[in-house]
Order: sequence, then C-alpha cells, then structure tokens
Amino acid sequence: MTPDAAPRAAIILAAGQGTRMKSPLPKVLHPVGHRAMLDHAIDAAEALGCERIVVVVGTHAPQVRDHVVARLGEAAIAVQDPPLGTGHAVRAAEAALAGFEGEVVVTYGDVPLLKAADIAPVFGGQGVTVIGFEARDPGAYGRLVMEGDTLSAITEAKEASAEVLALTTCNSGVMAAPAGLLFSLLGEVTNSNAKGEYYLTDVVELARKRGAPTRAVMAGEDAVMGVNAQAELAQAEALFQSVQRDAFLAAGVTMSAPETVHFAWDTEIGAGTVIEPFVVFGPGARVAEGARIRSFSHLEGASVASGAEVGPYARLRPGATLGEGVKVGNFVEVKNVSMAAGAKANHLSYLGDGSVGEGANIGAGTIFCNYDGYNKARTEIGAGAFVGSNSALVAPVSIGAGAIVGSGSVIVEDVPADAMALGRGRQVNKPEAGAAFRAKARAKKKS
Amino acid sequence: MTPDAAPRAAIILAAGQGTRMKSPLPKVLHPVGHRAMLDHAIDAAEALGCERIVVVVGTHAPQVRDHVVARLGEAAIAVQDPPLGTGHAVRAAEAALAGFEGEVVVTYGDVPLLKAADIAPVFGGQGVTVIGFEARDPGAYGRLVMEGDTLSAITEAKEASAEVLALTTCNSGVMAAPAGLLFSLLGEVTNSNAKGEYYLTDVVELARKRGAPTRAVMAGEDAVMGVNAQAELAQAEALFQSVQRDAFLAAGVTMSAPETVHFAWDTEIGAGTVIEPFVVFGPGARVAEGARIRSFSHLEGASVASGAEVGPYARLRPGATLGEGVKVGNFVEVKNVSMAAGAKANHLSYLGDGSVGEGANIGAGTIFCNYDGYNKARTEIGAGAFVGSNSALVAPVSIGAGAIVGSGSVIVEDVPADAMALGRGRQVNKPEAGAAFRAKARAKKKS
Amino acid sequence: MTPDAAPRAAIILAAGQGTRMKSPLPKVLHPVGHRAMLDHAIDAAEALGCERIVVVVGTHAPQVRDHVVARLGEAAIAVQDPPLGTGHAVRAAEAALAGFEGEVVVTYGDVPLLKAADIAPVFGGQGVTVIGFEARDPGAYGRLVMEGDTLSAITEAKEASAEVLALTTCNSGVMAAPAGLLFSLLGEVTNSNAKGEYYLTDVVELARKRGAPTRAVMAGEDAVMGVNAQAELAQAEALFQSVQRDAFLAAGVTMSAPETVHFAWDTEIGAGTVIEPFVVFGPGARVAEGARIRSFSHLEGASVASGAEVGPYARLRPGATLGEGVKVGNFVEVKNVSMAAGAKANHLSYLGDGSVGEGANIGAGTIFCNYDGYNKARTEIGAGAFVGSNSALVAPVSIGAGAIVGSGSVIVEDVPADAMALGRGRQVNKPEAGAAFRAKARAKKKS
Repeated sequence: MTPDAAPRAAIILAAGQGTRMKSPLPKVLHPVGHRAMLDHAIDAAEALGCERIVVVVGTHAPQVRDHVVARLGEAAIAVQDPPLGTGHAVRAAEAALAGFEGEVVVTYGDVPLLKAADIAPVFGGQGVTVIGFEARDPGAYGRLVMEGDTLSAITEAKEASAEVLALTTCNSGVMAAPAGLLFSLLGEVTNSNAKGEYYLTDVVELARKRGAPTRAVMAGEDAVMGVNAQAELAQAEALFQSVQRDAFLAAGVTMSAPETVHFAWDTEIGAGTVIEPFVVFGPGARVAEGARIRSFSHLEGASVASGAEVGPYARLRPGATLGEGVKVGNFVEVKNVSMAAGAKANHLSYLGDGSVGEGANIGAGTIFCNYDGYNKARTEIGAGAFVGSNSALVAPVSIGAGAIVGSGSVIVEDVPADAMALGRGRQVNKPEAGAAFRAKARAKKKS
Repeated sequence: MTPDAAPRAAIILAAGQGTRMKSPLPKVLHPVGHRAMLDHAIDAAEALGCERIVVVVGTHAPQVRDHVVARLGEAAIAVQDPPLGTGHAVRAAEAALAGFEGEVVVTYGDVPLLKAADIAPVFGGQGVTVIGFEARDPGAYGRLVMEGDTLSAITEAKEASAEVLALTTCNSGVMAAPAGLLFSLLGEVTNSNAKGEYYLTDVVELARKRGAPTRAVMAGEDAVMGVNAQAELAQAEALFQSVQRDAFLAAGVTMSAPETVHFAWDTEIGAGTVIEPFVVFGPGARVAEGARIRSFSHLEGASVASGAEVGPYARLRPGATLGEGVKVGNFVEVKNVSMAAGAKANHLSYLGDGSVGEGANIGAGTIFCNYDGYNKARTEIGAGAFVGSNSALVAPVSIGAGAIVGSGSVIVEDVPADAMALGRGRQVNKPEAGAAFRAKARAKKKS
Repeated sequence: MTPDAAPRAAIILAAGQGTRMKSPLPKVLHPVGHRAMLDHAIDAAEALGCERIVVVVGTHAPQVRDHVVARLGEAAIAVQDPPLGTGHAVRAAEAALAGFEGEVVVTYGDVPLLKAADIAPVFGGQGVTVIGFEARDPGAYGRLVMEGDTLSAITEAKEASAEVLALTTCNSGVMAAPAGLLFSLLGEVTNSNAKGEYYLTDVVELARKRGAPTRAVMAGEDAVMGVNAQAELAQAEALFQSVQRDAFLAAGVTMSAPETVHFAWDTEIGAGTVIEPFVVFGPGARVAEGARIRSFSHLEGASVASGAEVGPYARLRPGATLGEGVKVGNFVEVKNVSMAAGAKANHLSYLGDGSVGEGANIGAGTIFCNYDGYNKARTEIGAGAFVGSNSALVAPVSIGAGAIVGSGSVIVEDVPADAMALGRGRQVNKPEAGAAFRAKARAKKKS
C-alpha cells in the first residue's frame, strides 16, 4: 500500500455453520497447510496493512471466538445472531469499526487461498469494488454483469436470464468500499427475497442507483475457492501444496517426487537441499541449504542445518535442532534436543529433552528417559561422547565429554568426562540350560 | 428384492487361467481393497439375495476351489473341464442348480467393482437381460445392437459391420434369465466358430428366434471393468480407492491428502476423524468419531476409540483395541493388546498379547516379551502403572495397578500394585577406562 | 549394431552451467532413478557399442570431471573453456577423437531418458542425421524444415517465419555424422549471430551446401526431454518411474498402488511378488519371485529371496541378504547381514554386520552393537538360535546354533551352541517404593 493510500480495514465473515463438513470442528478452523483457514484470511488482511480487522462469528461456535480473541483480542469480534445473510453479517461488524474512516474489504474465513496480492486491487476505488473470477464451470455462481468497465449488477444464477447465465465472469464474494458508503448502502438492503436474507451483493445495485462507481477486479478461480465440504477442503489443500512444491522447486530444492512431499504454510527449505519421496512437514520446520531429508521422515518445529542428513524414518519434533552435518537416522525421534555439529543418532532411538555435544555418537536403541510420570528432565551429552547401543539414560543426567557408556547400560548418575560407565548385568552362560528351556517350552506348547 | 420377486441364483465364472497376470496366484484371488476379486463377486450375489450361488472353477487352480468351499461349501462348486467358452462354463453349473426355479444371473470372478445395486436391474425380466455399458473406447468389446427397447443381438467386434462398430453401447458379459430358459437356450448353443468355443452371448439370438424377450440394462463402465492383467488390477484398485475416499470425505472424515490414504473394503471411520497423509488400512480396521490417525500409520484388525491419537509411524495389528484418548506414538507396534482409556505408549515399543490399564504409561523402548520360541504369553499392566523406558517385560507377567517399573529393567516376576520394581545392573563409573578403551580401539583401527 | 557397421563414437555435452537448477550439485550429476543423468547418457552410448566416448566438460565443475574420470578414465575428458556454444563444445572433443574413423553421435548429459534404442537410427547415414520429435507445444524449439526426406534446415524459433513456426517437428539436438565430415563442417561454423556463439545446428545448412545428405529420424518427445530446472528434473523422474512401473506390472509384479512405488534404475523384481503402497527402492535392490514387500519399506543394495516378507517399515541397506521365507518386520534395519532361510527379525531391531542362521529368531528390540566408535565388528548367530527381546549383542560375538539368549541381556562373550545366556540385572520388588516415588515426583512437579 502506498504511503498516501486510505487506511484499510477488513471484515472477515466466519459465522457460517459449516454443517456440510459434518465435523465437530468449526469449519473455519479446519486447516490448510497446517494453518486454520481463518488464520489464512487474517494473514491476508494483515499483509494488506489493515489497521482494523473484525471477524464476524456466530453463536454456535465458541471455539471460533476463542481462536480470534487469542490472536487479535476482543475488539476483533463481532457477533451475528441470528444468521440472516451476508449483508446482515457485514452490518454486524459496523459497531466494531466505529470511528474508522477508510476502505473496508469483506473477505471470508473459508476462502483460504486468497492472498493479499490477490485482494490488493480492490482498494483505491471511490465506490464499490468486487473481486470477480473466470469460472471454468460457472454453474450456480452469481454472474458479474458488466457495462464496459462498470459493474452493473451481480445476478444470482437462479434469477439470471439465459443471456446472463452465459456469462463466465463470476462473483467471488469479496467486496471493498469506503466504510461510510458500505454501511450506508447496507442500511438500504432489504430481505424481501425467497430466503428472507440480507444479501451483501445487493449493495452493487444500490450503489448504482446512487451513482457511486462500481467495478470489478479479477482474481484466479483457485484463489477465490471457498470450502464448504471435506472434499473441497482436500481440494484446497491440494492447490496449496501444488503452489508450495512449485515454489520450492523454483528455489532450487531437489525433489524427485514433489507430489509426495507435504509442506506446512511456514516451511522453510534452502536451495540445494534434497527431499526424497514421502516426507511430511508439520508447522515450524526450517531446513537450511544443502541438507538431505530422506524418505518417510516427519518434521515439525525442528531446524536442520547444512549438510545434515535426516531419515529415512526420522521424526523431528518441536525443539529438535540439528547442527551442521548431524545425522538422525531410521526410527529415531528427537524432541527438544539440540544436537551440535557432527553428532549422530542413527538407529531406533528416542532423544527427548537435552543436548548432544559436537561429534557425539548415540548408539542404536538409546533412550533418553526424560519422564518419571510427573516431571520432564534433561539429558546432557558432552562433545565426543560415545553412548553404547541399547542404553537407557535416566534424566536428569549428564555424560561428560569424551565419556563412554557401555552397551546396554542403565545410567542413573552423571558420568565424568572421559570416563567409562557400565550399568548392566554380568553375562552368565549356562551350557545345559538352553536345551532344558526348549524341552520345557515345547512340552508346554503341546499341552 | 421385493417379497414376491422370483427366487434368485448366481453363477459366477471363475475358471479363467489368468495367464496375463503372470502370477502364481490365481487371477480371481488377487485382491482389490484387500479382498479377493472373487469375494467381491460373491458379496454382490449375496447382497442380491441369491439363494443359490455357484462358482464355476477350472481344474488348474485348486486354490480357487478351496477358497470357494471355505466360504460357501462344496455345493457351490461347479467344475468346467476343459474350458470351452463362457456358454460351456455356464452349462457346467446346471447340475449344481438342479431343482432351482427362478432367475439366474451370470457374473464374473474378475469383475470386482460390480455391486449388487448395479446388477439388480437385470432381474424381473421374462426373457434374457444383459448389462450393457457406454464405452469410452468401444474397441474390441461386443456391441449391443438394439431395436427400440429390444436387444436384437450381441455382435463381436471382429464380426461387426462398420455401422455396428460405430455403436458405443457394449456388452459387460453379465446376463440374467429364468433358469429353465437359460439352460434350454444354452443347450442349443454350438461351437461352430473360429475358436471352437461355446459363447454365452449366442443365447440372445437364440432367445430372439424363440420369441423370448431380450433387453439390456445399463451400468457404468468402471463398474463392469474386468481384470486380466496387473495394470488392470491396479486400475481397479485405484477406482475402488477413489470411491472409498469420496465416501469418507462425504461422511465427514478430514483428509488433507485423500489420494495418499488407502482403505480396505471393510474399513470404518467415524465423522470428525482426521487422517493425515500416507496412511494404510488393512482389513478389519475400525476408527470411531473424532480420532486422529497420523502420517505413516498402518492399521489392520484394530479398533480405535474417540479421542485416540495414533502415530505417526504407528502400527496397529489385529486385536489392538485402543480406548478413548489412548495415544500410540511413533515406531510402536500393538498386537492383540487392549489399551484402556487414556493409556499411552508413545515411542519405540512392542506391545504384543496383553492388556494395559486405564491411564497407564508405557515408556519409550518397552518390549512385551511375549514369545519364548514356542509359546505366546500375556503381559497385563494395571491402571495407572508406569513402565520406565527400555524395559523388557517377560510374559507371562503382570504389573499391578499404580506400580512403577524402573527404566531399563527386565521384569520376570509379577509386580504388586503400587510397588516399584527394578531389574537392572548397577552403574559403575571407571574414570580412566574411557580413555583406555579409546586408545585400544584406535590402535585396532589403524592395524 | 550389425557386424559390418561403421565404428561408433559418442560426444556427450556436459559443460553447461545449469544455473537454473539453483543447486550446488552440477546439473548433469543430478539423479534420475538414483543414477546421475550423465551416467544415463554414458549408459546409452555404451549400449550403442560406441568404442570411444568423450564427455565435454566445463571448468566450473570439477565434480563432473572427476565423475567421468572415475567411470571412463582421463581419455574421455574434453574441456570446453570458455563456453561458446554447442558447435564449439563438439569441436572441443575433436582432439580426444583423433584417429577415430567412423560415425560420431552428439548427445547430452542432461537428457536422461534417451535410450540406445532411441538413438540407434541416427547411425548408418552418409551425411548428417538429426533426431527430431513431434512437440505437443513447439514453442521455442528449433523447427526441422523438411524437403521430402531431406532435412533442409534447422530453424530457431526466434528466426522462423510464421510458416516455419507452424511446423511441429522439432530438433532434439542429437546429431550424428561421420567423424571427418562432422569436424570438417564444424570448422566452417561461425559465430556471427546475436549471441556470438557457435551453433551445432549450423552444420545442417553447411552440409546441404556441400551436397552431403541430411536427414531426420524421429524419437518420442518424452525420450528427448532435456532438464534445465528442478521442476524438469522432477518431471523426468516421473516419466522414468512411470516406465518402470508399467514394465514391472507387465512382468507380473502385483502393485495395488503403483504410483506410490519408487524404483531405482537397476531395481530387479520377480513375477508374482507383491509390493504394497509406499515403497522406495534405492539402487542395487533385487527381489526374487513370490516375495512380499509391505508398505513403508525402503530397500537399497539388498537382495530378497522367494517367499520372504519385508516390512511394513523395514529398512534394508546394502549387504542385507534375505534367504527364502525370511521375515524382516516393522522398524527393523538390516545392513550387511546375511539371513538364512526362515530367519526372523520381526520388531524394532538393528542388525548390522553379521549373519543369522537358518530359522533363527531375533526378538523385538535386539541390537547388534557393531561399532565401538572406531571399528565395526560382526555378530554371528547360529541356526535355530533364539535371541530374547531387548538384547544387546556386543560384537564381535557369536551365538551358537540352538542357543538361547535371555530377554534383556547384554551379551559380550560368545555363547556356545545350545547354551542359555543371561546378562541382566536381577529383579527386586520394593513394595513401598512405588508410592514413595510418586509422592516425591508429585511434590517436585508442584514446586
């Protein structure tokens, strides 16, 4: 937005019941790219520089209200009760925007792919501006009837003549106008229609009657897609993922099967990093340049430095911080552990809450016993330490730099630097016992 | 079927050699949605209310015979030997249907997607009824030549005129007729053709000659798809999965990437459950409403209650029964274990044969040692028990309610309620030994 | 190639910078099907029987040079410095082909899908032969202008008339000619064009002027696809995988979801083997007939015999050799271990460096402790041995035939045949200690 542009505000409609989702989770809280659809809408409003954002919620979904309050505070809430149409919903936001003089854009909590850049063109008009799109299959969408550059009407498909039905430019529902004009026009909207609802789209005709300018700006059909059912949510996710994959490929990330890699909205991956097939990124994952994420890995809230190799079958959870050249291998889970450069945990281990020093080697089957049923505690492993396979490190505990833990040990006390610690039973071979055991077990089986 | 409808019987042709599959497994036993194609055909016949079902088998595949006998008994078997065409195959079923007076439908053991609802319209005619379909690419399919509502002939593509080849309504091979009429007509079918085979399709022309009614009813092309090669089996599976995915989405299951979720024929999932990308359901999996199945999980023969969270990387095997709010986490396998509400096994564990009480916590790396090489035994864990990480519980053994097992223990005897059990070596730190060990290992490496 | 055919040589152009890849790895070393694109080009040249292969490299990528030298020796290297166009690049190979009298084909290090069979038709002409292709979207490709069977010119899109732009037969860039003719013509190519580069395509017009024959042979558009960006690399990989999948299906491999199975260039799978969804083959994997590879498995450098079952979630690494009927189950990694017929490792184990005898059973959670931080050592397990769950076998160590290792043991010494070995702590139950521990932990949590 240019410095002398009018102040901006956004009204985000999020009061719909979403019954077609058939889900206990309110519709607008369903995620796309691991982020609630409503948050995508709020993100776009923020990116547009909106100084006021009002979310219109219904009374049926306290979770939506709570979600908005947690992010934007109480001032961002407007309640529509009962639901009497989109025009009614926007009017419900009027009080919350009291004193605001600038342009208002109306967007939707269930249109998750619409970005600030798609919306921006609606601003700067003197009257009413609507976002239209070219529909592949116009079907039941409202049609934008143009007279030259002027939007002369939005006509619902049900009420459209054959001539209007043949139009393919449709109404996205997104609309902007100066605040005063918008609410003034809404005051004139009536509910004298079949459903008895107040339609936001009526504003266009009313503006025309006043002689206010009305126009349309265009966005892509995918960008304005609304979600009303699970299949549409999946479709929105697919579109979202497709955009992410293309962007990462363009940025120099190597993916042999990009269609099998799933990203979150905030995933960061550096150029030259290789991502093998079947990888899932949850929120908060950052991978530097030149790392390798192998197949069947799952990363969320983790950071991976250059030259690190993750997986196959590695699970990095929040707080996993992998330094340069770190290797985390198969069937290894890392949570809230910082691993310094060159550290390795290659097989079947759980590393939870702690730190691993530079170049330390965590043997196969090692467990950080970080939980006693009530409290979590930390395991600190020094640089160059060697933890033998199948060891249990009972936190809080520290293994000094260069120390060695014998395989199969249970470590309950700190191990000094360069020491060796053993905590395991002594082996006894019983020459006759194997055959005896078998005989007994065999007999039991027969019985 | 209406109460006064004629009795129904089905003849399922399953005698083909299936050589194009190039597989030692007989073709009709190849699965779609984890169920043999032949069983899909039997399912449809049963759902149609067929009181007699006869499967025509060849002599080359005793496995097919065994499969049918196990499900339907010996009476359901008719043997075609040698294979002399479809008409010959149907005649082979005549003896098995001795005494049956009603309508007979002929279906196929290699047409796995044809449902009872697709077949039902063939019944109720007085003469011969054939299921046709509109072919996207009619190619080598037999064409249905219609005269008004009457099916005048089924013409093989090879013998068809240009005019007939231009028809796109094709023969699925499924046909129904009153039993008496069917076998009477088949008695007149000859093998005076290039291949020297008896064709079922000849029945139509013979019926016409007698003045018996002949007609066609339509089904979708996907539904009547036959499988003759591995690529077609994969295509049938893809169609099957697509239908399953759409149905679960419509029922309120959330899947961000439905194309990466694979279902079995009998999978049940409740509304509001979330299934993340890359999940496989084998047969017998039931998930209640409002659960979460995370990425890379594999479920077969398991049930999951509301609020439970499974995976990522969880493997639930037959007899895994997860109560409300249970958590089974990464790299955890559960087989024949009932986990009561709120129990947790979050990391790297094998739980086989036993029970876990309400709210019990199974630490990382825990193993139920359920097998001694000959016998399986059970591990019973009481409510609220806490099993420390990396413990081995040697079955049969019980851990009492509220008991605590120290990390790294090997438990061979029962642990009373509220007791603590330890079974591990005592730790010894050897201050000089680490460096000594390294010097020795380093020297060995050089040598 | 027929016995009396002219000797063949190949010049492979690999000097491009590949900056659009945005990757530190030189473009031609990016893999398709787990094999560098450049190696695919060399494979094709070798399969064509080329007795001389010269790779033209730039000075910016010593890795490419090293890669070629390792495979073909120093004699195969020609350096283009600076890069002045494709004609210039081919001339750079002239010295390396000194003394060669026969036909030379020019191919590309970034055209990974072009097989020997696609290229072979270029040989046997007396003049210049170019490989053309029918382009779905000719766009910026050079057009092949034909006069009857004679190739009259290759015209760049930028310089083409509307008439020529309407042609859809395009230039792949692959060209062959007798060596003497080729270099003689190249000597006449000038750089008097907008870019100041020497174009190989100019050779066609120069040949025409001399009256030498010029012609085109055709290949498929997919086969001649060049890779210049990550998205194109992914597209080439997708095409490669599609061909592999179709070939394995045709050969009798059962895959319910072939689009989720990823093969390497050298994967071998026998007929009747079943591959479930989500399986990745790295290089060097061989699976015999009638095996089963279950979901989420990852195989590289491993061989699997008939009747073996792998996974779900099995990771087979180089040197894993599974005999008949072997089972490797979930969360099990096998590296450099030979497992004899009927051996089993079903759960959560790491088997690295060693051998497992016929019918031996490796319990859940077993670890081969093969590394001491400096050296690798072997674990040898005899036929019929039973290794109890959660055991750590500290290599070098051997478990005799028929021996039994008690669950949770740490085994540091050899176990004789038929003996039983125990190496674990003795269990102690402390009746009051559980409650005391809880009270203390609870108090700590509150504080």
